[in-house]
Amino acid sequence: MADRRSVWAWGMESREPSHEHLRDAARNLSARYGLSLEAAKPTKSGSLSLRRPRLSIPKALGTLCSTDTYDRAFHAYGHSFRDRVRKFRGQYPNPPDAVAYPREEADVTTLLDWCSSKGYAAIPFGGGSSVVGGVEPPEGYSGIVTIDMARMDRVIEIDKTSRAARIQAGALGPQIESQLKPDGLTLRHFPQSFEFSTLGGWIATRSAGHYATNHTHIDDFLESARMITPAGAWETFRLPGSGAGPSADRLVLGSEGILGVITEAWVRVQAAPRHRAAASVMFRSLTSASDAARAIAQAKLWPANCRVLDEGESQAAAGMDGGHALLVIAFESADVPQVDLMRQAIAIARDAGGRVDESDIMLAGGEKDQAGRPGPASIWRQSFIDMPYTWNTLLGLGLINDTFETAITWDRWPDFDHRVRGAVQDALNRVCGGGTVTCRITHVYPDGPAPYYTFTGMGRPGSELEMWAEIKQAAGDAVNSAGGTITHHHAVGRDHRPWYDKERPDLFASALRATKKTLDPRGILNPGVLIDP
Amino acid sequence: MADRRSVWAWGMESREPSHEHLRDAARNLSARYGLSLEAAKPTKSGSLSLRRPRLSIPKALGTLCSTDTYDRAFHAYGHSFRDRVRKFRGQYPNPPDAVAYPREEADVTTLLDWCSSKGYAAIPFGGGSSVVGGVEPPEGYSGIVTIDMARMDRVIEIDKTSRAARIQAGALGPQIESQLKPDGLTLRHFPQSFEFSTLGGWIATRSAGHYATNHTHIDDFLESARMITPAGAWETFRLPGSGAGPSADRLVLGSEGILGVITEAWVRVQAAPRHRAAASVMFRSLTSASDAARAIAQAKLWPANCRVLDEGESQAAAGMDGGHALLVIAFESADVPQVDLMRQAIAIARDAGGRVDESDIMLAGGEKDQAGRPGPASIWRQSFIDMPYTWNTLLGLGLINDTFETAITWDRWPDFDHRVRGAVQDALNRVCGGGTVTCRITHVYPDGPAPYYTFTGMGRPGSELEMWAEIKQAAGDAVNSAGGTITHHHAVGRDHRPWYDKERPDLFASALRATKKTLDPRGILNPGVLIDP
Repeated sequence: MADRRSVWAWGMESREPSHEHLRDAARNLSARYGLSLEAAKPTKSGSLSLRRPRLSIPKALGTLCSTDTYDRAFHAYGHSFRDRVRKFRGQYPNPPDAVAYPREEADVTTLLDWCSSKGYAAIPFGGGSSVVGGVEPPEGYSGIVTIDMARMDRVIEIDKTSRAARIQAGALGPQIESQLKPDGLTLRHFPQSFEFSTLGGWIATRSAGHYATNHTHIDDFLESARMITPAGAWETFRLPGSGAGPSADRLVLGSEGILGVITEAWVRVQAAPRHRAAASVMFRSLTSASDAARAIAQAKLWPANCRVLDEGESQAAAGMDGGHALLVIAFESADVPQVDLMRQAIAIARDAGGRVDESDIMLAGGEKDQAGRPGPASIWRQSFIDMPYTWNTLLGLGLINDTFETAITWDRWPDFDHRVRGAVQDALNRVCGGGTVTCRITHVYPDGPAPYYTFTGMGRPGSELEMWAEIKQAAGDAVNSAGGTITHHHAVGRDHRPWYDKERPDLFASALRATKKTLDPRGILNPGVLIDP
Repeated sequence: MADRRSVWAWGMESREPSHEHLRDAARNLSARYGLSLEAAKPTKSGSLSLRRPRLSIPKALGTLCSTDTYDRAFHAYGHSFRDRVRKFRGQYPNPPDAVAYPREEADVTTLLDWCSSKGYAAIPFGGGSSVVGGVEPPEGYSGIVTIDMARMDRVIEIDKTSRAARIQAGALGPQIESQLKPDGLTLRHFPQSFEFSTLGGWIATRSAGHYATNHTHIDDFLESARMITPAGAWETFRLPGSGAGPSADRLVLGSEGILGVITEAWVRVQAAPRHRAAASVMFRSLTSASDAARAIAQAKLWPANCRVLDEGESQAAAGMDGGHALLVIAFESADVPQVDLMRQAIAIARDAGGRVDESDIMLAGGEKDQAGRPGPASIWRQSFIDMPYTWNTLLGLGLINDTFETAITWDRWPDFDHRVRGAVQDALNRVCGGGTVTCRITHVYPDGPAPYYTFTGMGRPGSELEMWAEIKQAAGDAVNSAGGTITHHHAVGRDHRPWYDKERPDLFASALRATKKTLDPRGILNPGVLIDP
């Protein structure tokens, strides 16, 4: 049987950890932390029994739609902590009734017409990597159809002169890169979900990727978008820039499937980098490391990477002593050497108290070294992209392990960090009897950082979700009340609604509801995401 | 009597050209081009007789509102060619009935309540520099109230750590700069209208300014905005970046006064530049110069200036021979030397066939040279900002003289230029019996240029507006049918509607109408701009 996505783990079925592997992980972690973890068994897809489909597929849609148990289970959740626990346990109270795989745009129109006429909820689905309940079917609908864009996965057109490409929305990260590569081009959009997230999903959720400074979000790479709504097609001119009215593209960006199904887009691509420079600079504290990152961002050197790891993260990720923070700087370019920019960044970092040996500054080289082995940038990216596989092995051990991210202006930093970290640590102490919170800064702007937090605590078997919810509530409340956005790049979905509702202007929600009413009069598209139906 | 804005010329009354000055200009131009121009006399503000105000000001609004003839005439138009001709002639068929000057946000609310209750059109007004009919009152309303934000002109708060400032929407360019200067900061947004345009106007029209690459539009400098709508206040969190739903700020940007009155905003500011580098590179053609600009943009060197002048523009602006195009490159930074970046840009420009002597490359220096005289960047900016004063002297000579601008992807360049230039030249030949069209590229993106065209022809006295309209129609049609945006930074207003209506998705217009209905239920705000009422 061909390999396919795991219903419970990140990745393909062939990479699901075995029960033996989970048992080993339990033993090792128990020994290391003085716990007595036991590995539970994940629910196998073959043993699932779902609610019977509540709809019948019209004959004309027969070849597009599946009511297969595997398909419906796989599309019932994304990859949040809540999702992973429920999948591991085999809890599927509200799966989609059918999963549709359009082959072309006309299929999307047909599917939306069907859902509109019947009042079925229609859930656009890219790679299913949402960590905010963005693809989870809502309650209260007589039928649910998930529209999986996987068959629309082609790079249709490449414009080498403008460095742009027209790409179908269902193309996954690796599919995009492999189709661009023969022309020496790359999108270089590498969110952690890269392997299993799509261009359409990135646009719908304002994904942020590889670049830590300057153009960080997919927003900045979008030249024009095409979207099918229940009211018809929406397409913008391909333009490098415009000042003609409010940007129509910026309404598609972040629309999270409530306004239409994004079918394709022109995106700005890059020539593959040939010139690189990289360095890791050590600091006595997160504050001094972030001061350096701020100075580099405000000097507008625009490094591709400029990430800060706090003491805990630098210990876990880079094997440091736990008493120092780390600033990772990297420059890359297809066209011009990056040595001078790196020298300037290093000088700024040293001024802020950073320490780096000359021998640790890499001032040339590409994706591969002279022997053809992967260079540091490739190694870092691979380990970043492999991280969700590590999380697979923590499932079923009872650990509560999640991340959240935000952005805030520099004037509130590092107070913001103290408040958020304190609130989450308090919640961990109260709920789990202890735990850890660590922070890295994933993106850096001249006016503020985008901090990314990871927390871990020990759950009581069977109570993980309630315990997690209490910690998540504390985190969201702290972020929101300290003035941060509830999400810099994970999106809002259903799970971030309580804080998003306090963040966006009430009148903007009214405007968005009016817009949705215009494009989706029956209110079928991803109901409950961003705004109430 | 205190100096005040001229009702017909760009700038203050004290800088109005005298009739003698206009006569001299007529004589000089006649001699130079073999014409027989005669200078007409502009209509004096003192001799104007306007339609009587059709409304009575409520007592509570007495101190905010004026029905003075000068005030009403000054606010009847912006600064397009059509506007300038009508002002020069003293044609004011539809002036506002009253001009209001709110002192604080509550005044804006009171004014909008009044207009909503009476059904009066309310026209938000910044510096009045619109060249697209953006502040011209519409027909068909029983009353028109223009809301001039001039009294709300303060920088309220400065955050030096984040390099951001909270500024009232009515602050003019020079007012912003003078209030930021004591802190060593600058917004560095220098549109040609700099002296007489406001932060609120820049945001409402997606103004593009000083920076020719990377962050060009005010959009990129907006951290958060506050807007008063008839339905209440709209305010976003101050954030360096976010992925929480479609950007609310991006709906304010480009809204051109149809959704609300922008009252203040947090904007990203800069430390004043200390490091500079500048050069002008000569090319055999516009195409080779724009090839160089493309390569520099795609190499992401992000120069502050990267402007291309075609053969005609380089002759007029830089005294060149008319057979060469010019690429002007400049780098600037508060924090780091710019020499290496300039060397890389020069190398790219030379690869593309550019010629520049080493002695013509300026590799250091600031706004002023060692003797305290203005440096090249200051001189260039001053002459750029003084350009509209030159246009003052052409009024009343019968010349038809206008500009239009757009943006297009590189794959369509230079064909796009040939089509647009050809269409405008044809129209000039047909309508004026000849004339000139020149082009410069004002902003350069990795995926395309923003070309800016200037055309000049001889009009028949009294028929200038009809002749201009025919040429403008040809230009707009050519830009639109060749795939360009109808405006890169001049906005849509009322004058660009025919082409904007073909450019934006129909469904976006529906969404915008639904949004307007939500925020402005009586449809009083700037009716006819962007969408039909």
